[in-house]
Amino acid sequence: MKPYRIFLLLVLVAVQLSAQTDGLSRVRAYRKANEYVFLREFFSLLSIPNLAADTVNIKRNTTFIMDMMTRRGIGQVRLLSPRTPGAAPAVYGEVLVPGAARTIIFYAHYDGQPVSPAQWAPGLSPFQPKLANGALERKGTLIHFPESGDSISPDWRIYARGASDDKAGVTAILDAYEALRRTGQHPGCNIKFFFEGEEEAGSTHLSEILDQYKPLLASDLWIICDGPVHQSGKKQVVFGVRGDAHMELTVFASRRPLHSGHYGNWAPNPALMLSKLLASMKNDSGRVVIPGFYEDMVPFTAREKEALRQIPPVDEQMKAELGIISTEIPGLSLMESINLPSLNINGMQSGHVGSNSNNIIPTTASADLDLRLVLGNDWQRQQQRVTEYIAKQGFHVLDHDPDGAERSQYEKIIKVINGMDGYNAQRTPMDLPIAFEVIRAVQKTTTEQVVLVPSLGGSLPLFLFEKYLQGKTIIVPIANHDNNQHGENENIRLDNLWKGIETMASLMMIESR
Amino acid sequence: MKPYRIFLLLVLVAVQLSAQTDGLSRVRAYRKANEYVFLREFFSLLSIPNLAADTVNIKRNTTFIMDMMTRRGIGQVRLLSPRTPGAAPAVYGEVLVPGAARTIIFYAHYDGQPVSPAQWAPGLSPFQPKLANGALERKGTLIHFPESGDSISPDWRIYARGASDDKAGVTAILDAYEALRRTGQHPGCNIKFFFEGEEEAGSTHLSEILDQYKPLLASDLWIICDGPVHQSGKKQVVFGVRGDAHMELTVFASRRPLHSGHYGNWAPNPALMLSKLLASMKNDSGRVVIPGFYEDMVPFTAREKEALRQIPPVDEQMKAELGIISTEIPGLSLMESINLPSLNINGMQSGHVGSNSNNIIPTTASADLDLRLVLGNDWQRQQQRVTEYIAKQGFHVLDHDPDGAERSQYEKIIKVINGMDGYNAQRTPMDLPIAFEVIRAVQKTTTEQVVLVPSLGGSLPLFLFEKYLQGKTIIVPIANHDNNQHGENENIRLDNLWKGIETMASLMMIESR
Repeated sequence: MKPYRIFLLLVLVAVQLSAQTDGLSRVRAYRKANEYVFLREFFSLLSIPNLAADTVNIKRNTTFIMDMMTRRGIGQVRLLSPRTPGAAPAVYGEVLVPGAARTIIFYAHYDGQPVSPAQWAPGLSPFQPKLANGALERKGTLIHFPESGDSISPDWRIYARGASDDKAGVTAILDAYEALRRTGQHPGCNIKFFFEGEEEAGSTHLSEILDQYKPLLASDLWIICDGPVHQSGKKQVVFGVRGDAHMELTVFASRRPLHSGHYGNWAPNPALMLSKLLASMKNDSGRVVIPGFYEDMVPFTAREKEALRQIPPVDEQMKAELGIISTEIPGLSLMESINLPSLNINGMQSGHVGSNSNNIIPTTASADLDLRLVLGNDWQRQQQRVTEYIAKQGFHVLDHDPDGAERSQYEKIIKVINGMDGYNAQRTPMDLPIAFEVIRAVQKTTTEQVVLVPSLGGSLPLFLFEKYLQGKTIIVPIANHDNNQHGENENIRLDNLWKGIETMASLMMIESR
Repeated sequence: MKPYRIFLLLVLVAVQLSAQTDGLSRVRAYRKANEYVFLREFFSLLSIPNLAADTVNIKRNTTFIMDMMTRRGIGQVRLLSPRTPGAAPAVYGEVLVPGAARTIIFYAHYDGQPVSPAQWAPGLSPFQPKLANGALERKGTLIHFPESGDSISPDWRIYARGASDDKAGVTAILDAYEALRRTGQHPGCNIKFFFEGEEEAGSTHLSEILDQYKPLLASDLWIICDGPVHQSGKKQVVFGVRGDAHMELTVFASRRPLHSGHYGNWAPNPALMLSKLLASMKNDSGRVVIPGFYEDMVPFTAREKEALRQIPPVDEQMKAELGIISTEIPGLSLMESINLPSLNINGMQSGHVGSNSNNIIPTTASADLDLRLVLGNDWQRQQQRVTEYIAKQGFHVLDHDPDGAERSQYEKIIKVINGMDGYNAQRTPMDLPIAFEVIRAVQKTTTEQVVLVPSLGGSLPLFLFEKYLQGKTIIVPIANHDNNQHGENENIRLDNLWKGIETMASLMMIESR
């Protein structure tokens, strides 16, 4: 018998003998005894392609997840389908505790980002999960799936689309409930399960579902299990997200491409015009100079400021990892920078570069802007400010390509398309009683200080839960920060999955009162 | 019999009856009688893709052109191949006139600019020539190729890569010679033909060819048949060109693309850095602020200044045509602007725009610059000035992608690749005796005043002819000015092709003495 298995036996004996052993230890022991079974089931789930628009496979995913829930004794397992046909449904289930006055809903999403299989590392394929004995970009190599009884290292990683974002959330939540139940324990509150199927497609029908199933989805708290733990490796509890809005800008110059020799320096160059416009939007300290851009911000509370101060700095670690030595706003930390409204150029294009380059003055130049918003910003007002600023720089702003009459009237013409999919930031107060209980529940699972984050830099449409259900949301992520979320070679470290199960179980044990 | 054909018959009869009919009228009559045949042959030539690097198709082009020459009774038809393997050869041929003391070489190029087929108008494809009954951007529509005997309108246009730049030159020269010969006429001097195959690729091996075939290419004058006639529609004779030099700039930021929510406004954005750099290169009056940029310019002679004054202004016409109402350097005319050194952005690219856009901070941003040079500028000195300016803006300038050590040392990193295919401007004195004869020959073909231009805005490596052969060059262009040269929807108006044939024939009739 291997030493590891002797240790495991001792743990199991200890669990059963000691009356003092608390609920979490029993959960951990159960997980350790069942890692192989959990892994096999997770691999089967990851083998089902999960693009939100792939209705055939979405159905296979929901059937599989409903079976997982039924096997675990979860009640009322069903699909919550929006009225719009073809939209991916959410999977729902519940465990009601007699006499409980509180309800907590556990959220994760089972759909994943689009994939470019050719960009994945050799031997990997997005929907054929593989195990590696470490991160592939740091000398890890692919290994065979273990036999039952083999030892399983917490440093192993599973490579597959959805491995971390966010089938890991679905699995951790359901395994946590199984571990509780099979060790003879019960949730402290009523718990409900809500697994969304089109988060990566923009949650287009989430509002429909929330609106349609209002009574079923009433709760005291939504636990959002999505995203990575802190870059320091510590667990984190996140109370908010930034909002998001997009804009597409196109500067128009000559009607047709011009020979740069015959007309260069006479005919206006749209790439130069766009460069001057974009360059003017930020000063040399990286601050956006658009009037009102930093107005409307709801200041952080004293509690939030204190939390911000205690977040372990990762700036130097991240700079080394990214190969940069300076940042856009000198003097501001990463955490400070992402708690401001931001203006980022996602892309920029005019004419051609490199081997396709030719000696022309292009006809147009385009840029896509991504505006992130903090609490207090209104996404449409922020778009409006950018548009007004552009007009102040002498541009005639259109929402269409210019016609001849417009061309003959205005010197500088720009088309501005405001993305209609924007939304505002969301922040749950850190001093709500239930917030304290969430923090305490997560802290119970680790000896390290849990990182408390007032707001993520990224965006999720959490405002919808408040808008339709007056629901409070707190994000408790579990994935490793280097999980390649959204890109190729998405992966989850097993230790993060195992610890995630304990975190979710601890949250399920929050008492009703 | 259609009226057109009756007219044609009358013309032919007139040509044969009248002893007074001069040589040019006979050329015109021959062309009119052979438009259909000329067009068919030209379409076949345009159907062969002509990127200089596409060796297989370059060979098909040269074979086709050599056959055209042989069919016309031109002697010594052969390829002039540079020693460098894989480089596109020039096509050569000659017609020697007994007793002639003078030699004129007719130059055109058969290769074309790179193409982006998706950007061509619906129904067009760069190497499937199509006829239209007018300019497509001014209500012209595509029409079928005529049957033999159908009337052919001079307003029709041929759309294809190379239609104007510069297979039109090849065709006009060879058709002019055919018309001379078939109407029983002879050139006034020895004439030679030289069709280059990598002009649009920077004439990389032209110097090799000129050097290698020096005795064969000795001449009194090179007639360069390339580029458009004056925007007023008048024929022009051009005595010089600007020089040209290229630079490729790439700004580097984070090593991997970053989530714009989690890192936006903290991690540097290369598109913004590049925009600020490009924007800073010109002031609000469109003047380049790079130190020394306007130094070294050789002033125009009194004769050149007088010619410049007499060039019909086309600024207002061009603005209306291009759909613009202002120009880059306020107060300077087109002619004044293009007689300055210029800096033009040919293309600019970072991340993605439009439907491919995603919420990232790109890793790099690139721009291709085109520097035009006037007499006196040295192309490498001009590149050096731009590079020094970039360094002064705080960039660490590399000629390669940065490695980890460079990334950890420098805040702002740019890769600058100086194009090695640059060359200086060239200007032939307007008062050479042979210059007068060229002007007279072109003037004979038109009742309008021929426009005399000391220097084009565009560039050709004419300095090479002087450097290797002490050769004089004069440009006699034939294409319509709105030919979309270098861009999508390149085209030639048939009237320009027909008049070009007469112009070339008249030049071939310059007397030897």
